[in-house]
Amino acid sequence: MSAVVVACCQIALRVAEVEANRACAVAAIEDAAARGARVVVLPELVNSGYVFADRDEAAALAEPLDGPTVTAWAALARAHGLVVVGGVCERADGGTLRNTAVLVDRDGLRAAYRKAHLWDREVLAFAPGAEPPPVVATAAGRIGLVVCYDLEFPEWVRLPALAGAELLCAPVNWPRAARPPEGERPGEVVRVQAAASSNRMWIAACDRVRAERGVSWLGASVIVDPDGFPAAGPASEDDEELLLATCDLALARDKAIGERNDVLADRRPELYGSVAAHG
Amino acid sequence: MSAVVVACCQIALRVAEVEANRACAVAAIEDAAARGARVVVLPELVNSGYVFADRDEAAALAEPLDGPTVTAWAALARAHGLVVVGGVCERADGGTLRNTAVLVDRDGLRAAYRKAHLWDREVLAFAPGAEPPPVVATAAGRIGLVVCYDLEFPEWVRLPALAGAELLCAPVNWPRAARPPEGERPGEVVRVQAAASSNRMWIAACDRVRAERGVSWLGASVIVDPDGFPAAGPASEDDEELLLATCDLALARDKAIGERNDVLADRRPELYGSVAAHG
Repeated sequence: MSAVVVACCQIALRVAEVEANRACAVAAIEDAAARGARVVVLPELVNSGYVFADRDEAAALAEPLDGPTVTAWAALARAHGLVVVGGVCERADGGTLRNTAVLVDRDGLRAAYRKAHLWDREVLAFAPGAEPPPVVATAAGRIGLVVCYDLEFPEWVRLPALAGAELLCAPVNWPRAARPPEGERPGEVVRVQAAASSNRMWIAACDRVRAERGVSWLGASVIVDPDGFPAAGPASEDDEELLLATCDLALARDKAIGERNDVLADRRPELYGSVAAHG
Repeated sequence: MSAVVVACCQIALRVAEVEANRACAVAAIEDAAARGARVVVLPELVNSGYVFADRDEAAALAEPLDGPTVTAWAALARAHGLVVVGGVCERADGGTLRNTAVLVDRDGLRAAYRKAHLWDREVLAFAPGAEPPPVVATAAGRIGLVVCYDLEFPEWVRLPALAGAELLCAPVNWPRAARPPEGERPGEVVRVQAAASSNRMWIAACDRVRAERGVSWLGASVIVDPDGFPAAGPASEDDEELLLATCDLALARDKAIGERNDVLADRRPELYGSVAAHG
């Protein structure tokens, strides 16, 4: 049984309202579980919100990975047999702040990934991660983690694909940019589609909605199949939404296209030298 | 003056009809020049067609880079002040066959790029290239070259972007795959859109139309801007079409997004190790 229901909980959060944000996420996870989801993806920085006044505010909202937010998600994962992926404003060792995605399942915390590509004012609060996206073998399948702006770097998305991810989960906070031309999808969604098909893996990107201190969020959460087409979404650009898709994760184990080709085996990494820094 | 008119000549070619194919390409280039184009992109393997019976047939249709096809394009480039990019079935040194894209301008042949990622039965006829995509400083701007399946490897598209390409020209022969779901663009187009925006450069992909020995071509040629949105196309999936877009190539020199970010400078190549083979 490789088909699982994947959910993106596109919710509205409020900066600095930690209790309300936690309650909102818990309710969304329970709703997703009740509707059959086995993998539940939440947005980036769920506990804290995003638009911090300064680093001090972010620090005051941050919590360790054994804090109440991840603990609550792990309890829900255990109670309902879920995999939950979500973003946390993390206070790590020595007080370092991290923009982190966690994966919890019935065994508790399985992975914590620290966002490596920081967006805009995040550099004022967070230390960037220096480890590649983890890929976790779960009861639902092999799941990789990245966070928001990481998705914009095809080299980064390639790493979990090479490590065998069948589903890449991406908590995001996509700030709304200039409107795309009439009839066009937002570029964020297009790039998720391309990333999924270039790697023949599933990708679930879960965004938030509404505005926060003048920043408006795009919504448009999406679950994309290994052909690069939406299995669910893009979701509303205005409203909260529970996005659900039945995803046969085993499809992502087959990288063949046509009779002789394979999107990973056909790579020529010996020629890609200057894409990565050597030694 | 960094704005130039770029043309994709989406034409119908016929395998083995070398004279007819040459005449078709010449007519298309002249038409594009008459309509103001300064950069003219043709499909892959223009002289020969694509669906060879075997290597011997490809060898019989191949020509050297000083053969009649490239010579004719160079003459037109000189006469009309054009940059012409197109695909040639090349007989290289020692009889090696190459799936090659050339760039000619008023100074003649400026670059020849040998397709590095070969599709399907191409491996039976062609030796794959082992050099990265060239980027040529032309009167119209800095232009990079790749061929068809190369576009599916984000690492490969990144190389000319890092080398300063403002416009990436891609002669393609996109075989028509399963139809995309209703309302969706073909994946080939989506991936060109993503590649353009991930690198903030222009991309012009020129395909062919009609069927050849049972293989049907997708058409859907497209010229995409650095935001990832089509400036022209996708073209017809059935008919020949001259696609024209006025492209301000200088836009591609600015990689900034937002106040603090830059799609190239924000890369973390020191962490991308396993994307490229070291040593």
